[in-house]
Amino acid sequence: MQYQSINEANEAVVSKIVNSQPYLVDVVPAYTVIPQLNEKVLLHAGPPPIAYADMTGPMQGACIGAALFEEWAATEEEAQHLFTSGQVTFIPCHHVQAVGPMGGITSKNMPVFIVENRDGGNRAYCTMNEGIGKVLRFGAYSEEVITRLRWLRDDLAPALSKALKLSENGINLNVLIAKAITMGDEFHQRNIAASALLMKELVPYLLKTNTPVEKLEKVYKFLADTDQFFLNIAMATCKSAMDSARQIQEGSIVTAMTRNGREFGIRVSGLGDEWFTAPVNTPQGLFFTGYTQDDANPDIGDSAITETYGVGAMAMIAAPGVTRFVGAGGMDAALETSESMQEICISSNNNLTIPTWDFAGTPVGIDIRKVVETGITPIINTGIAHKKAGVGQVGAGTVRAPLACFEKALVALADKYGVVTK
Amino acid sequence: MQYQSINEANEAVVSKIVNSQPYLVDVVPAYTVIPQLNEKVLLHAGPPPIAYADMTGPMQGACIGAALFEEWAATEEEAQHLFTSGQVTFIPCHHVQAVGPMGGITSKNMPVFIVENRDGGNRAYCTMNEGIGKVLRFGAYSEEVITRLRWLRDDLAPALSKALKLSENGINLNVLIAKAITMGDEFHQRNIAASALLMKELVPYLLKTNTPVEKLEKVYKFLADTDQFFLNIAMATCKSAMDSARQIQEGSIVTAMTRNGREFGIRVSGLGDEWFTAPVNTPQGLFFTGYTQDDANPDIGDSAITETYGVGAMAMIAAPGVTRFVGAGGMDAALETSESMQEICISSNNNLTIPTWDFAGTPVGIDIRKVVETGITPIINTGIAHKKAGVGQVGAGTVRAPLACFEKALVALADKYGVVTK
Repeated sequence: MQYQSINEANEAVVSKIVNSQPYLVDVVPAYTVIPQLNEKVLLHAGPPPIAYADMTGPMQGACIGAALFEEWAATEEEAQHLFTSGQVTFIPCHHVQAVGPMGGITSKNMPVFIVENRDGGNRAYCTMNEGIGKVLRFGAYSEEVITRLRWLRDDLAPALSKALKLSENGINLNVLIAKAITMGDEFHQRNIAASALLMKELVPYLLKTNTPVEKLEKVYKFLADTDQFFLNIAMATCKSAMDSARQIQEGSIVTAMTRNGREFGIRVSGLGDEWFTAPVNTPQGLFFTGYTQDDANPDIGDSAITETYGVGAMAMIAAPGVTRFVGAGGMDAALETSESMQEICISSNNNLTIPTWDFAGTPVGIDIRKVVETGITPIINTGIAHKKAGVGQVGAGTVRAPLACFEKALVALADKYGVVTK
Repeated sequence: MQYQSINEANEAVVSKIVNSQPYLVDVVPAYTVIPQLNEKVLLHAGPPPIAYADMTGPMQGACIGAALFEEWAATEEEAQHLFTSGQVTFIPCHHVQAVGPMGGITSKNMPVFIVENRDGGNRAYCTMNEGIGKVLRFGAYSEEVITRLRWLRDDLAPALSKALKLSENGINLNVLIAKAITMGDEFHQRNIAASALLMKELVPYLLKTNTPVEKLEKVYKFLADTDQFFLNIAMATCKSAMDSARQIQEGSIVTAMTRNGREFGIRVSGLGDEWFTAPVNTPQGLFFTGYTQDDANPDIGDSAITETYGVGAMAMIAAPGVTRFVGAGGMDAALETSESMQEICISSNNNLTIPTWDFAGTPVGIDIRKVVETGITPIINTGIAHKKAGVGQVGAGTVRAPLACFEKALVALADKYGVVTK
């Protein structure tokens, strides 16, 4: 290889992550930037491939919702027939520069954010956050869900697109994220500061978009009320950084972590496009009134791209408020989490310093060798979906990546570099 | 007295502080709510009274600016003559339910926020934050300063007033402050989260005020750019809580701390309207490029009302980011500050819990007995003004209240309750 050692290659990978220059530049119908999204194609979360029959409830529910949204079907039954009769093709988001939260279901007319990484020269895409409660990403597909998705498509996305164009250079996401991490966001289960800061940036531009006042008012209200609005942008940001890092095709750094409700998959810098998978765990956490651990769907979603980048649960100490929300204790527990995550990373991201960690940077560069050696697996902050289609979010918690996928990847890496494995 | 003991009275005082229900209800020309503000009257910061000749530079500079703003004078020289010839009457803000940052200079046509405490049934007033750089409160009075003040008066304040009226109930400040303290604000030197959250609340209403688009754009831009915008609202909030607590006229709790650049003054629950004063200290901290400690004006401003209420430096642990800004170290230093402040307080405010302090509430109820016994004086986060009129802000830092005013108050309290002093 072109590097003297795996360590040197790893430094190069981490340097691409840390030096990424993500800008939010537009929000457009998915098919305009993802040509694979022809009629009857859906993107889904997780490592490839998964058939409809094998999907867990929330992903199936989101498929039904997408079919109703796209008017491929008029009823739930029609939609189900479409899927069970194999008329719809599925592609993982990760294979088309995209990421999707929870089910990750993305159809052609759903708007996606475009995050442009001006260091890597690459782009990443993610759907828009729909708010909380009954939402497609958690498997809900009632009339309310579909109506909201159409409003996102018809009103919110066009207004934001116009506003972003008026900003000329787009929104500098490194600056915004660096501010928000000092305000207690970890960008997975907590995005309240980043969402507010983004709104501050967009509000003056939105005003100049000639959007009728009554529409603009609804746009402002939605942005003001949606504390997780920034999550999907954070995901595309992290994806844009990790895809840029994948340009260095050597080393032992994790470049993607994702889950489809059955399998947890990772990609490793020196191992190209291959996914190394193992069965997912089920998140533990706190549940909304009326729900219990028994209702929890197994781990699902591309949102673990945030932890891959070094935020989310990796940066728990930045957001001690989150530890209670996900049922993981107080300040000491948050500190312990970030300290243990630092043990499996090779560096710190000094562009993202955490005041509550005495201005240490976020852990960056998960090294599969360190994971296997220490047995410490990445921890992920996550929403918890009900395991049945149609219900939606029932809680929030934490979950561990399974060790087995790191072990499998290490065997493959040892093979690649001609190292004899134990 | 109607209480069994000083401790019992103190509990009642703290209960009024903690149970305050502050709402931001309007912003209006100062003279409409403060009838004392007739022609040629100015409010100033600090304990009473101070003559123009005795004011330090930044307060004199702000007086000149106010005279130019009100068109009492056309030039700096004319303004100075007005003051030196005794044509202007001065009243402390605190005597008319108001507080003012730094110089605290408030004239009749300056807009003031109205914070209504629905528990105490009282109101408090504070001018609007002008942003950073050359601003009146730090003693600057150039054309730029006066032009901005007129824009606040003519455009910003009327727009916000209309927006607040559309909100019907006003903005619930307890909710907003409780959110923002989990986002790293301490409400004295850091208000970025609260300012963003307030903007989120106001943006949809502002849109409905029929403000012309080009004016509204400037309003949105100013709110988006002014990270300390909430400070003046925080000050009025704290004043409204402390004035409500002053209804309990017993006990040894500090109900006001303020400084006029010469004297530091405190009021105590059991000692009515009397001010107990001692010479101020000079803040130590970090200075903007080109300025040093030698340029620092001695401690000035009513903003220490935030520490009186239990935020600001009292809640340093909520905002470890601030400790660096004010030159006071990292996380450990922040923790140490809040822990030592807890030693001189009688309780915790559980409406304002701090995630970084394992959800402990802010320290509340500074007991002059504890201050004198321990020798620990309240610490204050503060902006630092240049000592010369006309320059403006040159840094930020921390400063201690002088022990002597607490000692004097304790002597008076011992006298009131018939306790023999040592």
